[in-house]
Amino acid sequence: MNEVTIHFLRDDNIKAPILIEGLPGVGQVGKLTAEYIMEKLGAEKIAEIHSLHFPPQVIVDENGVTHLVNNEIYRYENGDTTLLFLVGDFQSTSPAGHYVLTEAYLDIAEELGVERIYTLGGYGVGHLVDENRIFAAVNMEHLRPEVEEAGGSFQTAEMGGMIVGASGLLLGLGAERNIEGICLMGETSGYIVDPRSAESLLAVLTRLLGIEIDPALLRQRAEDMEQIIAKIREAEESKAAEELTYIG
Amino acid sequence: MNEVTIHFLRDDNIKAPILIEGLPGVGQVGKLTAEYIMEKLGAEKIAEIHSLHFPPQVIVDENGVTHLVNNEIYRYENGDTTLLFLVGDFQSTSPAGHYVLTEAYLDIAEELGVERIYTLGGYGVGHLVDENRIFAAVNMEHLRPEVEEAGGSFQTAEMGGMIVGASGLLLGLGAERNIEGICLMGETSGYIVDPRSAESLLAVLTRLLGIEIDPALLRQRAEDMEQIIAKIREAEESKAAEELTYIG
Amino acid sequence: MNEVTIHFLRDDNIKAPILIEGLPGVGQVGKLTAEYIMEKLGAEKIAEIHSLHFPPQVIVDENGVTHLVNNEIYRYENGDTTLLFLVGDFQSTSPAGHYVLTEAYLDIAEELGVERIYTLGGYGVGHLVDENRIFAAVNMEHLRPEVEEAGGSFQTAEMGGMIVGASGLLLGLGAERNIEGICLMGETSGYIVDPRSAESLLAVLTRLLGIEIDPALLRQRAEDMEQIIAKIREAEESKAAEELTYIG
Amino acid sequence: MNEVTIHFLRDDNIKAPILIEGLPGVGQVGKLTAEYIMEKLGAEKIAEIHSLHFPPQVIVDENGVTHLVNNEIYRYENGDTTLLFLVGDFQSTSPAGHYVLTEAYLDIAEELGVERIYTLGGYGVGHLVDENRIFAAVNMEHLRPEVEEAGGSFQTAEMGGMIVGASGLLLGLGAERNIEGICLMGETSGYIVDPRSAESLLAVLTRLLGIEIDPALLRQRAEDMEQIIAKIREAEESKAAEELTYIG
Repeated sequence: MNEVTIHFLRDDNIKAPILIEGLPGVGQVGKLTAEYIMEKLGAEKIAEIHSLHFPPQVIVDENGVTHLVNNEIYRYENGDTTLLFLVGDFQSTSPAGHYVLTEAYLDIAEELGVERIYTLGGYGVGHLVDENRIFAAVNMEHLRPEVEEAGGSFQTAEMGGMIVGASGLLLGLGAERNIEGICLMGETSGYIVDPRSAESLLAVLTRLLGIEIDPALLRQRAEDMEQIIAKIREAEESKAAEELTYIG
Repeated sequence: MNEVTIHFLRDDNIKAPILIEGLPGVGQVGKLTAEYIMEKLGAEKIAEIHSLHFPPQVIVDENGVTHLVNNEIYRYENGDTTLLFLVGDFQSTSPAGHYVLTEAYLDIAEELGVERIYTLGGYGVGHLVDENRIFAAVNMEHLRPEVEEAGGSFQTAEMGGMIVGASGLLLGLGAERNIEGICLMGETSGYIVDPRSAESLLAVLTRLLGIEIDPALLRQRAEDMEQIIAKIREAEESKAAEELTYIG
Repeated sequence: MNEVTIHFLRDDNIKAPILIEGLPGVGQVGKLTAEYIMEKLGAEKIAEIHSLHFPPQVIVDENGVTHLVNNEIYRYENGDTTLLFLVGDFQSTSPAGHYVLTEAYLDIAEELGVERIYTLGGYGVGHLVDENRIFAAVNMEHLRPEVEEAGGSFQTAEMGGMIVGASGLLLGLGAERNIEGICLMGETSGYIVDPRSAESLLAVLTRLLGIEIDPALLRQRAEDMEQIIAKIREAEESKAAEELTYIG
Repeated sequence: MNEVTIHFLRDDNIKAPILIEGLPGVGQVGKLTAEYIMEKLGAEKIAEIHSLHFPPQVIVDENGVTHLVNNEIYRYENGDTTLLFLVGDFQSTSPAGHYVLTEAYLDIAEELGVERIYTLGGYGVGHLVDENRIFAAVNMEHLRPEVEEAGGSFQTAEMGGMIVGASGLLLGLGAERNIEGICLMGETSGYIVDPRSAESLLAVLTRLLGIEIDPALLRQRAEDMEQIIAKIREAEESKAAEELTYIG
């Protein structure tokens, strides 16, 4: 059995210079952002990636049909702009598997003509955040000015950090293949799924891509979420107050 | 050393279109059901599967003879009906091993002419269950109507679930080989070995197979078990009552 | 790098029909017994086995010289009797590694003409034991009478047990190569290194081998150990008594 | 994907008989010592080693540029003296990976003409240490006298110890290739990064190498560290005193 299997759903020769990775991670910030763009642009699935490095399980969809756990490649194409997306619900179950999977992603990227990869993630700070900064890292120094211009901050990088999993390795192993890599991480508490941070990330990424995506629905999700959180807090506080009364 | 070794105990060319998997899992519901059918029909062992993905140990039988931990293929054959069974006491010790083992099972299935696989399991709900529903999932959408007609419910699937281990991967990896797959999971508390849930599972499965199996002995085991549990409860309650008296 | 490397220290063609395994395990009963026989007979080392399945470390000897963690083959030869011993301080660090290592041991055994393997171990019962029974298991049923005659008990086996690690797999994988296998397990508490249990094991094993080994030194070690334990107990009791006085 | 990849940064034929390993370990004693010598001598990087046995992450440097987790080879060359250094921030994530990586290090060593390897580490004793002894082990007995003459102690070795990871395996697997190996371990509490122990280690190592390195900056770091620890203790004591007053 191969460690990684790639199924292409269509056979064409469209070259795509840009790949955007949004696999699961802190606050699901990268995943939310990538999937939001895909949805707004109407990207279509072009490949499925199976691997024994994913968890040994199938997902049952709303029709009761099973699907192997996988990662997927989507493509959006419209005249000048061709974008690829790498998304999915899982990363590797083992440390070494992350390397094997990332090399497979890069094989696909090379085959499809990718020259630059954006990897999207969250940067957990452990407390609620009012304004979500977007921290950035690059795999070649010449990429830094354009990222800063688009609103990416290199403050974290100056502290000397780590980027774990596919978001990091796509930059590290991508550099070995001369593929440019830019990692954008939305500041987030790390406690909840964070569409507010995804909205900030979307702004920086779309500036870099030179495209426009209406963030209204993402903002709506953030507001919905904040209302739910506010209600939970209220309920907790009134309960705490009641208990105080009771004790008193 | 090969990762998986298969020993065929007999050399014939009988084709079997149906494979029933009943490996260990939640409430041992799948294992109980598969082994009950095998026993009632008088299936015979035709192959043993050894693997370094099983635990590194041997089982000592009642004669003091050791046997490598393995999974086994049994066959029942009677005119029109030929059924294969995949049973055993263990699944893989590692996530990747589940994939390797399932591919080996599918190699055997293909070699023996299998066109459809039933995987049997339990679905733990965390509380005692009065009537054990049978939840189902399929690996091709056209299979759904006949499963529903036989009494399988797709309610869980509609919630979007996961099926872990061989029961799931046989469907997921089987679809890649065009083998139909139906997973049937007996609702169970998940706390005990559950012959009552196995009896419900047996009813749905035999309807799908178009065969009849007398569930009397399985029902007897369920009743015996329920009596034991009732006695334990009684003992605990009377002990609790005694302690209350003592404290009072 | 090979998963297992075998270094033969001498090049000869002496065939040895018997291999005795005494790797670490419960109560070190097997290791104590095998090493005691080796010492009494004056066996000499003929091979070293290195493997990446052993822990990644070296042992520093009393001269400050490092040695790769390994397992070793010793040989005793004297006219009619030729015995091989498999000993060492470690077993595999992973479940799959146990299989890989055992296959390597069996390759050596076949090369050296081994027809029967004795695997030695302890059987932990969780409480102190007055008389250490020797439980046995065999990999071919015809071996059972001679083991019973020599004093081995098949009581545990009748309960249906497991034998984990090399002691079990040498029987299980050995049977596949038509090598006879007998596992002897000294009953032991499982809490301490147990030379008393090793003495009982020695008695059964030497009867099976048809050789005589004076157990005096092993008995001495058992008595020394029992005196130490008695002193520790005494100290604890007098300390407990003191504390009671103090509290009072 | 290869398990280990080596990138040479320059292509020359300079032979270097000595390799000094200073990978992370107890008290970072080996790493501090190796990096201090490299800095004082002005060694230059000649190779990078990547591997799927390292953690799956990249490091972000002070410019926001990512780098694959790696180990590195540095070289210092000056007339008579040519020294290689093996340094980095990580060791293997799995037991077997330590073996694979060490064999790769030895492949490089052989290619570069290495005849002797010094491995540097710390020896944790679990309490603060006034004078840091340097414990030693060798992979060939004839190396012992010169190590003792240089101030290395074989006391620990006489107790029969273990050396875990690259520091141990370079000696164990190096001996198989006839490469001399000397392990020097600075006694340290094991609780803190310990430049004081590194200073003692530096003294013994430079005597063995026949070179002189001014330890002033290392001593300064040790003194700075000791002042910080003293201040923390003072603060804790005065806080404890305050609390006593408050309680009183």
